[in-house]
Amino acid sequence: MAEKTWVRMVTAQTPTNIAVIKYWGKRDETLILPVNDSISVTLDPAHLCTTTTVAVSPSFDQDRMWLNGKEISLSGGRYQNCLREIRARACAVEDKEKGIKIAKKDWEKLHLHVASYNNFPTAAGLASSAAGFACLVFALAKLMNAKEDNSELSAIARQGSGSACRSLFGGFVKWIMGKAEDGSDSLAVQLVDEKHWDELVIIIAVVSSRQKETSSTTGMRDSVETSLLLQHRAKEVVPKRIKQMEEAIKNRDFGSFAQLSCADSNQFHAVCLDTCPPIFYMNDTSHRIISCVEKWNCSEGTPQVAYTFDAGPNAVLIAHNRKAATQLMQKLLFCFPPSSDADLNSYVIGDKSILKDAGIEDIKDVEALPPPPEIKDAQRCKGDVSYFICTKPGRGPALLSDESQALLHPETGLPK
Amino acid sequence: MAEKTWVRMVTAQTPTNIAVIKYWGKRDETLILPVNDSISVTLDPAHLCTTTTVAVSPSFDQDRMWLNGKEISLSGGRYQNCLREIRARACAVEDKEKGIKIAKKDWEKLHLHVASYNNFPTAAGLASSAAGFACLVFALAKLMNAKEDNSELSAIARQGSGSACRSLFGGFVKWIMGKAEDGSDSLAVQLVDEKHWDELVIIIAVVSSRQKETSSTTGMRDSVETSLLLQHRAKEVVPKRIKQMEEAIKNRDFGSFAQLSCADSNQFHAVCLDTCPPIFYMNDTSHRIISCVEKWNCSEGTPQVAYTFDAGPNAVLIAHNRKAATQLMQKLLFCFPPSSDADLNSYVIGDKSILKDAGIEDIKDVEALPPPPEIKDAQRCKGDVSYFICTKPGRGPALLSDESQALLHPETGLPK
Repeated sequence: MAEKTWVRMVTAQTPTNIAVIKYWGKRDETLILPVNDSISVTLDPAHLCTTTTVAVSPSFDQDRMWLNGKEISLSGGRYQNCLREIRARACAVEDKEKGIKIAKKDWEKLHLHVASYNNFPTAAGLASSAAGFACLVFALAKLMNAKEDNSELSAIARQGSGSACRSLFGGFVKWIMGKAEDGSDSLAVQLVDEKHWDELVIIIAVVSSRQKETSSTTGMRDSVETSLLLQHRAKEVVPKRIKQMEEAIKNRDFGSFAQLSCADSNQFHAVCLDTCPPIFYMNDTSHRIISCVEKWNCSEGTPQVAYTFDAGPNAVLIAHNRKAATQLMQKLLFCFPPSSDADLNSYVIGDKSILKDAGIEDIKDVEALPPPPEIKDAQRCKGDVSYFICTKPGRGPALLSDESQALLHPETGLPK
Repeated sequence: MAEKTWVRMVTAQTPTNIAVIKYWGKRDETLILPVNDSISVTLDPAHLCTTTTVAVSPSFDQDRMWLNGKEISLSGGRYQNCLREIRARACAVEDKEKGIKIAKKDWEKLHLHVASYNNFPTAAGLASSAAGFACLVFALAKLMNAKEDNSELSAIARQGSGSACRSLFGGFVKWIMGKAEDGSDSLAVQLVDEKHWDELVIIIAVVSSRQKETSSTTGMRDSVETSLLLQHRAKEVVPKRIKQMEEAIKNRDFGSFAQLSCADSNQFHAVCLDTCPPIFYMNDTSHRIISCVEKWNCSEGTPQVAYTFDAGPNAVLIAHNRKAATQLMQKLLFCFPPSSDADLNSYVIGDKSILKDAGIEDIKDVEALPPPPEIKDAQRCKGDVSYFICTKPGRGPALLSDESQALLHPETGLPK
């Protein structure tokens, strides 16, 4: 082993993802094995991603982690599972330039530092743990010179957070539930990459909420134990939907894609409601957003926008194309204008060009928007939406080679 | 037939009912045959009932009806079905004192006047059509001297509004779905009368709502056509629950009764959510009421209160006994105080003795209520509940022999 002063670092960026056929229910709590397959779309990391720097050094005396600048414990089972699995796959590393030489067996004794940062609010309920565990596993694999491909890595990330396995790829991704008792075949595969269906536009409505939500881990467990509909969904409904959704994605059939996405989101929330005690993730604002989309889709005769909601009140709206997204933005801003003290620049974030296409430059343009004709007595609910994020389907994990983007100091291995 | 001047009248009062195992989905739209059995509790007609006067006279030249003082059309299929079925069962009537003599065959030519009145707001979504059709059929049967018992009459009321069949009895009532194609065996039977479990107290929270609701007829049809969970519920879940609920009622087992009622209400709303487009009957206030009850039940270790919601946001809360009802009233008034301009007397209606037991005499007592200890950071949501109705399980239909209670004039047969 080389002298004690070196620090080897890797920095990676991993996207978050949103399921269009939902994962809800584990058949194995420890290995995180699901009761059904799921399919997701990866979101553009430019707007929603986790950046993680992992470092190893003989000078580190324990594993440590910082999330958004704050040190957190790595002692939880989920972190430990990921660290153990990755360490088992570590290979020898040699960097002659820096005088680093790590033998395969050394990895068991070396300690790690991890720093992770989300470019979006963690509290917003936007699947930060999915991007987080995917990024941790991906970065560690590169640091440790593991030879596994992204599907194999996804089976490790899965043990941190189930949906994390789907963040190992861009575009549309399927998490195959698998059959093996040890979970080795429960992993993610890419269905199509992000270029396959690149006209889709995604608008996320981050919804204000008074209520503290049930964590998805707890909620899922309660649903498995008490819902009399969950197993029927997992065994009878989802397998058919998975096939139909794969077809819809392959053929870029937006009508089927929207119908399946909306139905599956609603059925997942139905199972939550069928749980004892019942779980409510959507609130009145979520319901109004659904109603707004349903009325528009109905009036057009063919779906313009799909909606899907995870374990929280935020709406993820997938528009067929830029034109539909522009109209959607106008309708949403009519129904959910910013509260009086908000400025438009922080109310619509991400890809602001949608706003420009919609002819909205300042708050006066929002006020002047006409009511959507398909909604009778459309009300304007100020403050019910915290902000909107405009984005699109995006790529999978990437290494950031520019050391200036690292979150740890190259010499101390401590947060910058 | 006697001279043309007489008017024969009958006035009846019929309760409303609330299902604790829900009816949602028809297997026959015209005959109104359900996809599963249901069980309901009849509500005390002192607080929620329909009063209907039916009259016949050779001087009437057409069938007419007035609902809450306003003339409405009887041409709808549901009214016509009830009228046709009752007329087919009419028997000869003779009242020598008044000089009335009607032969069985005369009923086909004689016209009817009907006046109906609900002692609660029709718009409040409190199953007014159930009480209404039950009362119409019951009153007409008496007017026409039909010999059918209440179960047989329930099969006629069912053709007006499905849930109406359960309003032909007091106490706890089962609507047997039946098997016959003509619907003849789809009728209500009394499980136990209102004296069997007389410690129960019912508090209804009439919830303010911004949204117009989907009618239950339309909603049910959409669910049958699109929900992939409804048939599983009807075939696999409900039959077992019906048996368990019958046992719970027979044994006055409040724990099982509450668990089954809450689970079945939630599952009905889950099926609504699984409908395409999704149907939302409960709103954020409904969710907060559920959360309030669930937390209390959980903290007590054994259920104190059951909740159930029909096709709207109103909560029907069934307390184990008077003590539980008193505590529930205090918790509800803490969480949902009246808006500033409401007076307590119109905010809690029905059996006001619960309010007295709770030590609440005026608005200052409401303001002084302590937060429920089991709810962390309990918020007070003024104006989210319109008013509360305190009531209890009650009796079935009754004839009102006092002519002063009739809604039609004894000589003209027109509304008083």
